[in-house]
Amino acid sequence: MTSERIHALLVEVAAGRMTVEEASRQLSGFPVALCHQDGEVVARLDTQRAARHGFPEVILAQGKRFAHLEAIVERALSGGEPLLITRLTSKRIRRLKIRFPALTREPGTDCLFRVGCEVREPRGLVGVLCAGTSDIGVAREAALVARLMGARVQTHFDAGVAGLHRLLAADELLRTARVFVVVAGMEGALPSVVGGLVNKPVIAVPTSAGYGAAFGGLTALLGMLNSCAANVTVVNIDNGFGAGYVAGLINRL
Amino acid sequence: MTSERIHALLVEVAAGRMTVEEASRQLSGFPVALCHQDGEVVARLDTQRAARHGFPEVILAQGKRFAHLEAIVERALSGGEPLLITRLTSKRIRRLKIRFPALTREPGTDCLFRVGCEVREPRGLVGVLCAGTSDIGVAREAALVARLMGARVQTHFDAGVAGLHRLLAADELLRTARVFVVVAGMEGALPSVVGGLVNKPVIAVPTSAGYGAAFGGLTALLGMLNSCAANVTVVNIDNGFGAGYVAGLINRL
Amino acid sequence: MTSERIHALLVEVAAGRMTVEEASRQLSGFPVALCHQDGEVVARLDTQRAARHGFPEVILAQGKRFAHLEAIVERALSGGEPLLITRLTSKRIRRLKIRFPALTREPGTDCLFRVGCEVREPRGLVGVLCAGTSDIGVAREAALVARLMGARVQTHFDAGVAGLHRLLAADELLRTARVFVVVAGMEGALPSVVGGLVNKPVIAVPTSAGYGAAFGGLTALLGMLNSCAANVTVVNIDNGFGAGYVAGLINRL
Amino acid sequence: MTSERIHALLVEVAAGRMTVEEASRQLSGFPVALCHQDGEVVARLDTQRAARHGFPEVILAQGKRFAHLEAIVERALSGGEPLLITRLTSKRIRRLKIRFPALTREPGTDCLFRVGCEVREPRGLVGVLCAGTSDIGVAREAALVARLMGARVQTHFDAGVAGLHRLLAADELLRTARVFVVVAGMEGALPSVVGGLVNKPVIAVPTSAGYGAAFGGLTALLGMLNSCAANVTVVNIDNGFGAGYVAGLINRL
Amino acid sequence: MTSERIHALLVEVAAGRMTVEEASRQLSGFPVALCHQDGEVVARLDTQRAARHGFPEVILAQGKRFAHLEAIVERALSGGEPLLITRLTSKRIRRLKIRFPALTREPGTDCLFRVGCEVREPRGLVGVLCAGTSDIGVAREAALVARLMGARVQTHFDAGVAGLHRLLAADELLRTARVFVVVAGMEGALPSVVGGLVNKPVIAVPTSAGYGAAFGGLTALLGMLNSCAANVTVVNIDNGFGAGYVAGLINRL
Amino acid sequence: MTSERIHALLVEVAAGRMTVEEASRQLSGFPVALCHQDGEVVARLDTQRAARHGFPEVILAQGKRFAHLEAIVERALSGGEPLLITRLTSKRIRRLKIRFPALTREPGTDCLFRVGCEVREPRGLVGVLCAGTSDIGVAREAALVARLMGARVQTHFDAGVAGLHRLLAADELLRTARVFVVVAGMEGALPSVVGGLVNKPVIAVPTSAGYGAAFGGLTALLGMLNSCAANVTVVNIDNGFGAGYVAGLINRL
Amino acid sequence: MTSERIHALLVEVAAGRMTVEEASRQLSGFPVALCHQDGEVVARLDTQRAARHGFPEVILAQGKRFAHLEAIVERALSGGEPLLITRLTSKRIRRLKIRFPALTREPGTDCLFRVGCEVREPRGLVGVLCAGTSDIGVAREAALVARLMGARVQTHFDAGVAGLHRLLAADELLRTARVFVVVAGMEGALPSVVGGLVNKPVIAVPTSAGYGAAFGGLTALLGMLNSCAANVTVVNIDNGFGAGYVAGLINRL
Amino acid sequence: MTSERIHALLVEVAAGRMTVEEASRQLSGFPVALCHQDGEVVARLDTQRAARHGFPEVILAQGKRFAHLEAIVERALSGGEPLLITRLTSKRIRRLKIRFPALTREPGTDCLFRVGCEVREPRGLVGVLCAGTSDIGVAREAALVARLMGARVQTHFDAGVAGLHRLLAADELLRTARVFVVVAGMEGALPSVVGGLVNKPVIAVPTSAGYGAAFGGLTALLGMLNSCAANVTVVNIDNGFGAGYVAGLINRL
Repeated sequence: MTSERIHALLVEVAAGRMTVEEASRQLSGFPVALCHQDGEVVARLDTQRAARHGFPEVILAQGKRFAHLEAIVERALSGGEPLLITRLTSKRIRRLKIRFPALTREPGTDCLFRVGCEVREPRGLVGVLCAGTSDIGVAREAALVARLMGARVQTHFDAGVAGLHRLLAADELLRTARVFVVVAGMEGALPSVVGGLVNKPVIAVPTSAGYGAAFGGLTALLGMLNSCAANVTVVNIDNGFGAGYVAGLINRL
Repeated sequence: MTSERIHALLVEVAAGRMTVEEASRQLSGFPVALCHQDGEVVARLDTQRAARHGFPEVILAQGKRFAHLEAIVERALSGGEPLLITRLTSKRIRRLKIRFPALTREPGTDCLFRVGCEVREPRGLVGVLCAGTSDIGVAREAALVARLMGARVQTHFDAGVAGLHRLLAADELLRTARVFVVVAGMEGALPSVVGGLVNKPVIAVPTSAGYGAAFGGLTALLGMLNSCAANVTVVNIDNGFGAGYVAGLINRL
Repeated sequence: MTSERIHALLVEVAAGRMTVEEASRQLSGFPVALCHQDGEVVARLDTQRAARHGFPEVILAQGKRFAHLEAIVERALSGGEPLLITRLTSKRIRRLKIRFPALTREPGTDCLFRVGCEVREPRGLVGVLCAGTSDIGVAREAALVARLMGARVQTHFDAGVAGLHRLLAADELLRTARVFVVVAGMEGALPSVVGGLVNKPVIAVPTSAGYGAAFGGLTALLGMLNSCAANVTVVNIDNGFGAGYVAGLINRL
Repeated sequence: MTSERIHALLVEVAAGRMTVEEASRQLSGFPVALCHQDGEVVARLDTQRAARHGFPEVILAQGKRFAHLEAIVERALSGGEPLLITRLTSKRIRRLKIRFPALTREPGTDCLFRVGCEVREPRGLVGVLCAGTSDIGVAREAALVARLMGARVQTHFDAGVAGLHRLLAADELLRTARVFVVVAGMEGALPSVVGGLVNKPVIAVPTSAGYGAAFGGLTALLGMLNSCAANVTVVNIDNGFGAGYVAGLINRL
Repeated sequence: MTSERIHALLVEVAAGRMTVEEASRQLSGFPVALCHQDGEVVARLDTQRAARHGFPEVILAQGKRFAHLEAIVERALSGGEPLLITRLTSKRIRRLKIRFPALTREPGTDCLFRVGCEVREPRGLVGVLCAGTSDIGVAREAALVARLMGARVQTHFDAGVAGLHRLLAADELLRTARVFVVVAGMEGALPSVVGGLVNKPVIAVPTSAGYGAAFGGLTALLGMLNSCAANVTVVNIDNGFGAGYVAGLINRL
Repeated sequence: MTSERIHALLVEVAAGRMTVEEASRQLSGFPVALCHQDGEVVARLDTQRAARHGFPEVILAQGKRFAHLEAIVERALSGGEPLLITRLTSKRIRRLKIRFPALTREPGTDCLFRVGCEVREPRGLVGVLCAGTSDIGVAREAALVARLMGARVQTHFDAGVAGLHRLLAADELLRTARVFVVVAGMEGALPSVVGGLVNKPVIAVPTSAGYGAAFGGLTALLGMLNSCAANVTVVNIDNGFGAGYVAGLINRL
Repeated sequence: MTSERIHALLVEVAAGRMTVEEASRQLSGFPVALCHQDGEVVARLDTQRAARHGFPEVILAQGKRFAHLEAIVERALSGGEPLLITRLTSKRIRRLKIRFPALTREPGTDCLFRVGCEVREPRGLVGVLCAGTSDIGVAREAALVARLMGARVQTHFDAGVAGLHRLLAADELLRTARVFVVVAGMEGALPSVVGGLVNKPVIAVPTSAGYGAAFGGLTALLGMLNSCAANVTVVNIDNGFGAGYVAGLINRL
Repeated sequence: MTSERIHALLVEVAAGRMTVEEASRQLSGFPVALCHQDGEVVARLDTQRAARHGFPEVILAQGKRFAHLEAIVERALSGGEPLLITRLTSKRIRRLKIRFPALTREPGTDCLFRVGCEVREPRGLVGVLCAGTSDIGVAREAALVARLMGARVQTHFDAGVAGLHRLLAADELLRTARVFVVVAGMEGALPSVVGGLVNKPVIAVPTSAGYGAAFGGLTALLGMLNSCAANVTVVNIDNGFGAGYVAGLINRL
């Protein structure tokens, strides 16, 4: 529940256009909405989050039992706020879309979000680049999140450092974006190269693309942490969500 | 076989209410009951355990062949003592429940235990908290074990450190429990925060919840071992059983 | 050499106030100034950096032979631009200060910088917090760098998560800063807690403070990468410089 | 400051035996006492700790600059409460003892504590065992801390599992203690063996004793986390302090 | 081909009881028998091995394509020597037994061996112990291999260190065996305890039994390498074959 | 597109045998050919590669979505240049062969390549050896790539160091090849032994063959990096492609 | 105290040649002799070891405080049995030799042992090989220990696998020894090669020789654990003592 | 001893210009020259190496006792062949130069080599690049070795990927060299970028430059092994020698 929404609601009450009871009901889940299962609280939705962080509830689906996931989604949707669910399997996406038609899938990602979440007039510019075709899924997740946070987003995919001329086509993007998300697997060198070309913050996302000594993204992660470009910070392996989120925050400043 | 049970049995014999043969049979598996398979000993049940440790036999199902598991369960149930089986698959739970109706499943866990195991008048208070919805399975396992050991147990789930106000609802529990089990995955920071708020022992359980650099619970484990709160000790990743067991022991003191 | 400086220089030439020769000399090291030793190029100073990145040359002293370091410092100072040198030993600090009186040491850090580097009217606000007294050196390095980039900086030290009330004194800072640098060793949990309290970007810096399973900062690093707060990004262990740099960049937006 | 002390102080004020000014002064550092250096807060002493946790301030010296350490010790001693400092070097011990005669060293450890800290009538019983002569330093630190927390302590050193008869001499201790601290390096097997013999909580402390694939205590740590005895919990490598602290807490129950 | 067999064959030729052609054919694969597939050599059987090492060909099935495995088995069986195949899947065991009826499965293992391989009058004594029921498969593999090498073998299973009395039943075995194979997962402490009780070589086999920080057997492996008993040497995780082989070699001395 | 091809095309245009339009079309993807999916660029084929590197486009299939893979293959085939696809699953091989009949599979590998890719008169000599039967797939991938780069290739499989006489049959190959690819799993010792016998470059390829402490090829990788033979360099685990590629490059010199 | 010695002593008593008091005194430290320091037991010498294990007390000096070491050595020497001390620093060797003239240093090692320890008529044959000159210290420690256990020992140093002809000079040793100790650092491949040439047990000792990705002996250790030769078992990094000990045990069989 | 030298010597004998005795003496150390110390062989110089590998003896000084080092150097110099010693400390360099005036130091490295080793007319071209000033020592070692093997060498230092324009100055070198050695620490990305620009083999050398999560060169090593450029192979951390050696071998083809 955003602070604007809370304010609007109070105005309605003050003007007699909304009963105290209705207002109470709507605020009942604030700042924590409880999700129950088998008579026990299984989740505490941080409904204050939109007010505090400027972003709707995000649910990391991975690791959660499906029954818990359903209970959480139902509770979250009931509030009317934006909602994003990440790291879903194809099977879960199908089941959730059937049960909750308000949810829609972002193409090429494992994410569902509430229809109508997106801001009408995005502002600023977030550049999302990735090194290889295998990194596109993570990059798109980052782009989606930044978009949901109100940012204008441009992408440039498959621009790995072993063919620098592939990065040239992104020349204008490199000059104009306010913040960059750079996604790469294997040796994870792209953020360093991009970081050297721009004077804006670069959020590096290592991916689990690669094999053998890529160690599921560890190599890319370590490489990015040791970037010789000083404007690079790093998030967890395959964490497109986090990168998009921080990029969205920075883009707002 | 608890020492009370041994004593009671001897009283029966002395009073002529039980034949020596029957008493012999009941004591035959003491202190080690052998389970055979293919003419070889495949397990040595520690029947002295209840007397020595105050807790029934616990069987870690994972890694055992099903035939061995069956043989062990059969032998353990024949003694009349409490029994707990952990880390079962859904399939094994179904098969064991059919074959051994005396077993019942704890909801939301991978555990079976003998019906009637639970103490009638639990005492003390063990607080079981967890950071996220994905950690509930492990937390419930800990709660079950503490309960089987005679403890009163209260739970508080989904109270991760990124939304501290979610921990506030556990205020009373934090003030009254004699010992805490705190379960968390990802960065595993909850035990440190809880440890700083209470002056009782905190048993931290890292879970494998998370992805990428969570490394299957290693990150949470390392974080907990380095807790800046001095009242925190740690058990193995996902080891709800061990945490509940030690909490039960401490709660008895 | 900043673009302002280049422009000013050209204005001087156009106005006849500076000879072409002098302008050429000043621009000679642009965009790469070579440092020689034993007739070989040992460093290529990126003099375009100030124009491109808005920040002076920064020299990582660690790992460099002292002769190389001297050559680089001499060349960098000759250009008149700001200069920062990090990760110096006490002995090297003494030797460099004697040879280059234009350098001054930031108290409590291993850094030297050129006198007069600091911006007169800092703007915005960068909050720099650390968890323990052992983390202060790294935190001060971050604060220095942000300051050199024109940011107003406030610090709040020794506010680890095992005593949350110590964080309360930073309440105002938490509400007002535009971006945060949060430094912590051991389990590295402070960034998650701060991240949950603010809706601004948090740059987490793991430190090598701790012992045993702290593994020289690895544990803190992993914990921060797995933060359950979505607004946290991470830099290398003990990399106060990098965190301050990115905070400075974000603060400018 | 313990709650008893706060109460006593208030009684004094109520009875007119202490001026409000004096009481204010004594309470001024409550709940957080600030230590300054160079005009900046470098430490926030948690003076509420004794009331909250029942134990005085403990200072981990390792990693702190000596000037910071001095400032903290001075502030902590001024309050009149117990004080413990761990992980000191020999040189620092000498310097601190000269400056603060109220401090005394525990033989065979790297700890200083305030003279008079120890409880006059210890109660309960904490058993502290170690596997090898190299582990004695860590074991003694644990014993000291438990003692400072009011526990009666008995030790049994050099009782590694490759010579089980060496453990026999501890037979009575194994039967009578309420909680155990078991210290071991190399493969770290002693806690499992002790854990199998007792029905009380065992706090295992891995040490960095060993070489090669002991990896500075990592092997012992991992072994203890995987103990087949269910009553074992684990603390960080060489963390005698933490183990003694939790043992002391448990011993009070 | 054993040296005895080679000698016997030459005697037959010398006595005119075998043609030179037939002897040539039988020796054709000596010392290396080639296995072809798709017109390329895919395996070089070391037929000199029996003569050099006193043991038949052993084939590690894991990692080999089934077509390659078939070709190798066919070639190996054609020579008339003993044969052992390890690390087979259930499916492969079924398929190979159908195609090669000369192969038989050792119960409770993933091994096939040639019927009639076993020595008629085993000698010496190899003791094979394991810590838990989950380790039995690996222990049986070791026992089989030692047996195939002519050793008398006795086993003692499920004798983990957390219940030392379970080891007592093996008292006679501990006194009489010439060499021991000790198999354990989790913390892997059993070899140290056994090593301390006997004055014979102990070959320790870590297993992948366990979960979480057992890291697939790494913890047990490290523990065994750091054994405080000096008579312990170690083989790879789950390498029952190697342990049985070395025990068989030592038993022959 | 090779430089020869570009030159030939320009000759055709100059001679009036090709229209400018047709030449434009053929050159349109030079130096980067874009592959689209869902209106977004998902791959940038480096069509300049053949000219720059002397080798056709190579597509690492692993990690790519099938739709992306199809789009890339279609685009790559349209140019008429050689094409190699590595790390395919059996299912993907089947699907691609049906859709693109120009592709053929190399036996015993997971690779597809364009029919007719191979040079008619290979030159030089690349020796490809492997230690065990499990390593043959990787060795064949290396051999294929070297062959596609114009090299004459000879293989010698299953020649591990525990039976040195198996290496003798490769005597002539060891004396005559210009460069070696040596593939090994487990301890990865073969490259050192081969490296000691030859005075040519040896490219070592660790494989994931083995189990337990082989750690998926990490052990072989580390062993090769520490080779006591100075003529050994190393590529990633299971990277037969890379080794064959470099061997092909060296063979051309 | 060996069983022979105990027997002899009892014979003396029975024959009236020794008083009961004297025999009592001599047996007083049996089976555990206590070493005190500061009124506390700091070591429990396993005096039964010689009878149980056939080898005198061995003291690992590393990690022990010097005062403890002195107390242990004094106690051990008082019993008249053989004594070996390993992993001493040069300084400690000097100090101990001055205080205990009965101790002598083995050249090229960090070991002291009691003069006269060595058996007069060694038997069997232990072959000790090492790969490089840097491994000689560890190899000599192994040779010393085997010698002290009564074995005849022959060494062959600097025979790494990159120059196989250097191993040829050891041809006779390879054919005649009953058991081998093979020491190697870096990639640790020598045990596999030796293991393939002999049909006796090979005890592999990884050393910390090497740099970079040798990781202090970890690479050699892993390589040896994955040896493709089945007769190889492994001890800890740099553990010459353990290898020599087991070789000595095997040599006795 | 090169094959040319052996041939020349035989010619001298055949012509009667050299006595058989003298020729025998000179050949006495062929193919293995023994170095003794304390009556034991401590090194076996591979004097056949020059003939087999085309390069003189190279001695890795690190890890060797100085007495052993001296013995080896003396023996190696006596043969008249080229000699290179790597990884010396400053102190050892001083001592060896005094004792063996035939040795000279390569500036900026830790290497000594025999005066007059260098080829008079170098041929081909080896390009040696490094990313940072801290990598120069390793790069120079590689350049020295390639030079001693007869290669013409050009260097280009301090050309890290965060400032790509610094690589431009090496444009001609990138087009003309036959093989490249690329040295980098931290994230180790330079080899990928260079590899993408050239069509020649690139030998990547990770260095231990960096701090924190650089893990002593591990990060750079992993990055290089996962290079997205296919023409990159890798050697051990800081192994300038090995890279220069292989580059020298390739340059000869």
